[in-house]
Amino acid sequence: MIKPRTLSGFMELLPEDQILFNRIKETIKQEYEKSGFVPLDTPILELSEIMLAKAGGETEKQIYELEKGDNKLCLRFDLTVPLAKYVAEHQSELSFPFKRYQIGKVYRGERAQKGRFREFYQCDIDIVGNGQLSLINDAEVPSVIYNIFKKLNIGEFCISVSNRKLLLGLFEELNLKDVSMEILRVVDKFDKIGEEEFVKVLTDDYKLSKNVVEKILNFIKISGTKTEQIEKLKGLNIKNVQFLTGIDELETVLNFMGDFGIPDQNYKIDLKIARGLDYYTGTVYETFVKGAEYLGSVSSGGRYDDLAKFYTNNNYPGVGMSIGLTRLFYQLRENKIIKPTIKTLAKVVVLTIGDTWKYSLNLLNKLKQLNVNCEIYPEDVKFKNKLQYVLNQEIPFAIIVGEDEVKNNEFVLKDLNKKEQYTLKTEKVEEILNYIK
Amino acid sequence: MIKPRTLSGFMELLPEDQILFNRIKETIKQEYEKSGFVPLDTPILELSEIMLAKAGGETEKQIYELEKGDNKLCLRFDLTVPLAKYVAEHQSELSFPFKRYQIGKVYRGERAQKGRFREFYQCDIDIVGNGQLSLINDAEVPSVIYNIFKKLNIGEFCISVSNRKLLLGLFEELNLKDVSMEILRVVDKFDKIGEEEFVKVLTDDYKLSKNVVEKILNFIKISGTKTEQIEKLKGLNIKNVQFLTGIDELETVLNFMGDFGIPDQNYKIDLKIARGLDYYTGTVYETFVKGAEYLGSVSSGGRYDDLAKFYTNNNYPGVGMSIGLTRLFYQLRENKIIKPTIKTLAKVVVLTIGDTWKYSLNLLNKLKQLNVNCEIYPEDVKFKNKLQYVLNQEIPFAIIVGEDEVKNNEFVLKDLNKKEQYTLKTEKVEEILNYIK
Repeated sequence: MIKPRTLSGFMELLPEDQILFNRIKETIKQEYEKSGFVPLDTPILELSEIMLAKAGGETEKQIYELEKGDNKLCLRFDLTVPLAKYVAEHQSELSFPFKRYQIGKVYRGERAQKGRFREFYQCDIDIVGNGQLSLINDAEVPSVIYNIFKKLNIGEFCISVSNRKLLLGLFEELNLKDVSMEILRVVDKFDKIGEEEFVKVLTDDYKLSKNVVEKILNFIKISGTKTEQIEKLKGLNIKNVQFLTGIDELETVLNFMGDFGIPDQNYKIDLKIARGLDYYTGTVYETFVKGAEYLGSVSSGGRYDDLAKFYTNNNYPGVGMSIGLTRLFYQLRENKIIKPTIKTLAKVVVLTIGDTWKYSLNLLNKLKQLNVNCEIYPEDVKFKNKLQYVLNQEIPFAIIVGEDEVKNNEFVLKDLNKKEQYTLKTEKVEEILNYIK
Repeated sequence: MIKPRTLSGFMELLPEDQILFNRIKETIKQEYEKSGFVPLDTPILELSEIMLAKAGGETEKQIYELEKGDNKLCLRFDLTVPLAKYVAEHQSELSFPFKRYQIGKVYRGERAQKGRFREFYQCDIDIVGNGQLSLINDAEVPSVIYNIFKKLNIGEFCISVSNRKLLLGLFEELNLKDVSMEILRVVDKFDKIGEEEFVKVLTDDYKLSKNVVEKILNFIKISGTKTEQIEKLKGLNIKNVQFLTGIDELETVLNFMGDFGIPDQNYKIDLKIARGLDYYTGTVYETFVKGAEYLGSVSSGGRYDDLAKFYTNNNYPGVGMSIGLTRLFYQLRENKIIKPTIKTLAKVVVLTIGDTWKYSLNLLNKLKQLNVNCEIYPEDVKFKNKLQYVLNQEIPFAIIVGEDEVKNNEFVLKDLNKKEQYTLKTEKVEEILNYIK
């Protein structure tokens, strides 16, 4: 006998939670499709050579690798690298801008801890251009994410936006170009480590002068309305070209976000948003739920100027965002922001009394033809045990068929919530729709 | 530069095919849910110790294994073993009969050849009882499969049914008990190898007498209507208890299958159906499409009396069937039984002329609120290039917004198929639904 168990860091749900999980996944899928994103489903296994073309450091350590035959393979750790490979591989067969969504499992062998998963769903949208990609796309992507969180009804949320060119331009202006990626990552951690530690790291570890640190702090703390923030950015009088492009792009994207229908209170500028990954080159996003900041960013992403550069010389700029569904679901569920409402998908269960199987199965077919989610209790047990199953499963309606019902060509419909029952004629079975809607 | 490529034996589709694939997957899911099966989504990675508890021989050689930390892991090779683990692990939290479906990828490192995949979707339904499971369930499972293939509209098909107790009982009667699993597998290959080779293998390899081979042949060749076949089985006058139970079970299941609404021509007895796997103990099924036998069985399965015996002492009998979706899709597509009908999910694309972005994006939002799948062409290119995108993507409707339309608060709707166009008022945008349905 082997003790049955599931790997730690791998989510496995009971039916009621799985139903809830799938509903959220379905909402995300529907919104992606409504905005014209086409589905993509790439393999979970890829050649390591392809998958790790640009990885290194932390990422590489977390990879699940294996060998099969002569091939070194690995499990995908995100959906962006497979997209890059796909675009390069099929570039002549795709229409651009190429808008795809992918919802699938990815694998990272992180240290196991509560709320961290080694197998988890990512739900990605990306828009990829052929040689060019307008800033409209940088606004469309968060507008789709806005529609999803609005529909999921998980509370007030706000999409924070910045543009990497601002920080990178500022660092150029401050003669920090050589360490700009490192300092970018320190800025990215500002909210986590706090101002004191932030200043300490920059002065002690990176030997920045008090004056330089001050300038960085002044920049990331710029506040006010979005319009005020843009004015203050312009007022800094920084002449660096990259910085000025950053202001232009940010302003344009914010305007389009409004045009895409995102309400003013659902998006803002946060100049501390930098994102850890090095491939972002412009707009960057994070999304926070108010009063539930412990969730972390529930959807992040950004613009990258050359998606497929490891696989092709052609230029494919892209912009995308991702929802980390497994972690999000876990946190929402743990914190009771969501909870299961049904334990099974059946709306009606047919219960037989005596040998009324033939009649009951015919009735069941008719219900299925009416597109009613239904089942029959199939075991020969005492009636009270059958009823107990219905109550345990919280199925809202039961149909009861005894020998009298067969004789009269009818059936009894029991509404378990209202505790009422009705007798319906089997030849008019469609009338059930008036009761169970 | 690394050449972008996908592992051989791993399916990766272009958008139009992915859309088609997903539609089939969605139909399967909907039918499973309509019959009250709850979704399950177990990890793709499991401990080898758990996953391979009962594997051996051919299966074990095909496993993708890896090590991570101190753990030996493997990628699941089917969805039945994870179900067994799940039931044993969560037995106290589940309601029985437990009806679950799972649609997910499984991995088998088979020799690569056309139409064979190493990563492929299985779409499984199973009903698992706690200590008991009536034969009604053996009829419900194929009735759900019937509904699916009916809906998929892939041509005439027939579900072949048998019961393993018949062959095993016959072998007992013929004193072949010691080699019964081996001979069962030879019977399973009858249609592939033909009668001559079949007789040769039994006489040469297994040293069966002419008389015994004759009896096996007479048995598997029993023909006629279902009722006639059952009568002929009874007429064989075999006294073996297992054999007699087999007749009873088969007769009962066939009757219930009719009651579940499967038309007479869509199911039959085929006594050659044995299935290769050793865990089946009763009813077994295969499904064939008429005139497309090269597809092989498009859905197979059976009854097993003790699903979770490697993980628990409690008895969980089950019955299930599986659709091998990836292979099925590949074959249907290759043989042009199905083909893509749309290249993208967008039904309407908005095209701007001049700087009408703000107005156009507002219009786009309104369309989304009407649940219209739509997108805007986001790049600043010549109008004829925008139109070319619409034609390439075969999007049926285009909305055109130039400066005149903005001035008059209207928009032009172009029906690309009918080659007609209409001018609509933006304040009555919902009227678009009359044109695009």
